[in-house]
Amino acid sequence: MISMIVLGSGNVAQHLITAFLKSEMVTLVQVFARDASKINHLIDIEKITTDYLTIKKADIYVIAVSDNAIAEVSNQLPFKSRFVVHTSGSMPMTVLNEKNNRGVFYPLQTFTKNKALHFREIPICLESEEASDYQMLEQVAKSISDFPYSISSDQRKALHVAAVFVCNFVNHLYAQGQAICDANDVPFSILQPLLIETASKIQTLTPEEAQTGPAKRNDTETINAHLLFLKDKNQQEIYKLLTKSILDHGKKL
Amino acid sequence: MISMIVLGSGNVAQHLITAFLKSEMVTLVQVFARDASKINHLIDIEKITTDYLTIKKADIYVIAVSDNAIAEVSNQLPFKSRFVVHTSGSMPMTVLNEKNNRGVFYPLQTFTKNKALHFREIPICLESEEASDYQMLEQVAKSISDFPYSISSDQRKALHVAAVFVCNFVNHLYAQGQAICDANDVPFSILQPLLIETASKIQTLTPEEAQTGPAKRNDTETINAHLLFLKDKNQQEIYKLLTKSILDHGKKL
Repeated sequence: MISMIVLGSGNVAQHLITAFLKSEMVTLVQVFARDASKINHLIDIEKITTDYLTIKKADIYVIAVSDNAIAEVSNQLPFKSRFVVHTSGSMPMTVLNEKNNRGVFYPLQTFTKNKALHFREIPICLESEEASDYQMLEQVAKSISDFPYSISSDQRKALHVAAVFVCNFVNHLYAQGQAICDANDVPFSILQPLLIETASKIQTLTPEEAQTGPAKRNDTETINAHLLFLKDKNQQEIYKLLTKSILDHGKKL
Repeated sequence: MISMIVLGSGNVAQHLITAFLKSEMVTLVQVFARDASKINHLIDIEKITTDYLTIKKADIYVIAVSDNAIAEVSNQLPFKSRFVVHTSGSMPMTVLNEKNNRGVFYPLQTFTKNKALHFREIPICLESEEASDYQMLEQVAKSISDFPYSISSDQRKALHVAAVFVCNFVNHLYAQGQAICDANDVPFSILQPLLIETASKIQTLTPEEAQTGPAKRNDTETINAHLLFLKDKNQQEIYKLLTKSILDHGKKL
């Protein structure tokens, strides 16, 4: 068994606590959280501490806090030469205080409060300074997920930017689609199957192969009609830029 | 039984032919196609015609051709006062020649060649001039799909624009995500579960509730780091515009 301590109480911390509690490879020794009330529904209250000085000994310390708090939490740890990882997609491993052995345990998924996830299908990006630490980290990752990857800090940065495109920006296009439906008295739910199929297509086709629509066909008549239809300046701008990008992308291939 | 004739041989026509052949409500009398070789794997060759003058009698004629060919095909039909529909998301019902009774049968999905679809889950947007025609159209729709909707030409136009956002533009963001991965030696497949979860979230949450990421958090440090990371001018522009749009959208709520 590998003993672990999670530091944090937000979305990612909560999903990790749940996954670690189910893992047969992990003993979750303790959770450090400034606000115990956010996680006492997940774990016994006596396993929660709010004081750095009472943090116990463990094989791996997982700092699952917001990006800008990682350095501070790692600085506050009252020990050295232990194995400490963070869970961020965008921060390099070196943001952690070097008094400890450092690593990264980044589950690449969009975590929403109160929405259960099948952790086994979530890729986990792993990195560590020490090879022996990596082995331990990989054991833990394999115990909760079928997709552990060795990913360097540079690769992780690229992945995180790409994830912003395929997740955050995509979701915002859903929001714009809903706004257009709402403004025209059409139920957004009609678009649900399309939206799901658009994502699942990418499991068997490349995005290039899957591309359809007026921009792909260079159907200027429809494109102009759509631009005329859109009254919202911001929606017009998004429509123009992405249409141009699809056209240019097609030319490059 | 409702007798039907499909005019067209492209993606949509092929998927409809397959669905109608399976329907217990429909007799597919004939298919009109300029190029018979594109559909003779789906239907007996003697049921295919390439000559307008040999088109048979049927309850519903379905024109499933590209948008700019619909008017021409409907003009060429050598009969009047029959029921003729098109399958386009972006064209009004009135693009059809008025010598026949007009309607629309628009399956709202992204059709890709050689990729099977569960037609029952595809919403079909219906419209007709005559109430009695509508009933017949709805019977056909219900026989192949669980989601028939009565949608006016104006509503359909809005839906089609919204579909460009949630399907065509979303797919292009996948393409950009893959380009970023490729340029940085990371397998794009790591992003698959994220991409699927991002779409399936929208079945239980609104896009506003589901929004995550640096723009949503107004995390300017990460946003600037990402912009610095992106070397491609076009990717930078997309990143800036969509980040600004997420920020502004958040303020409006």
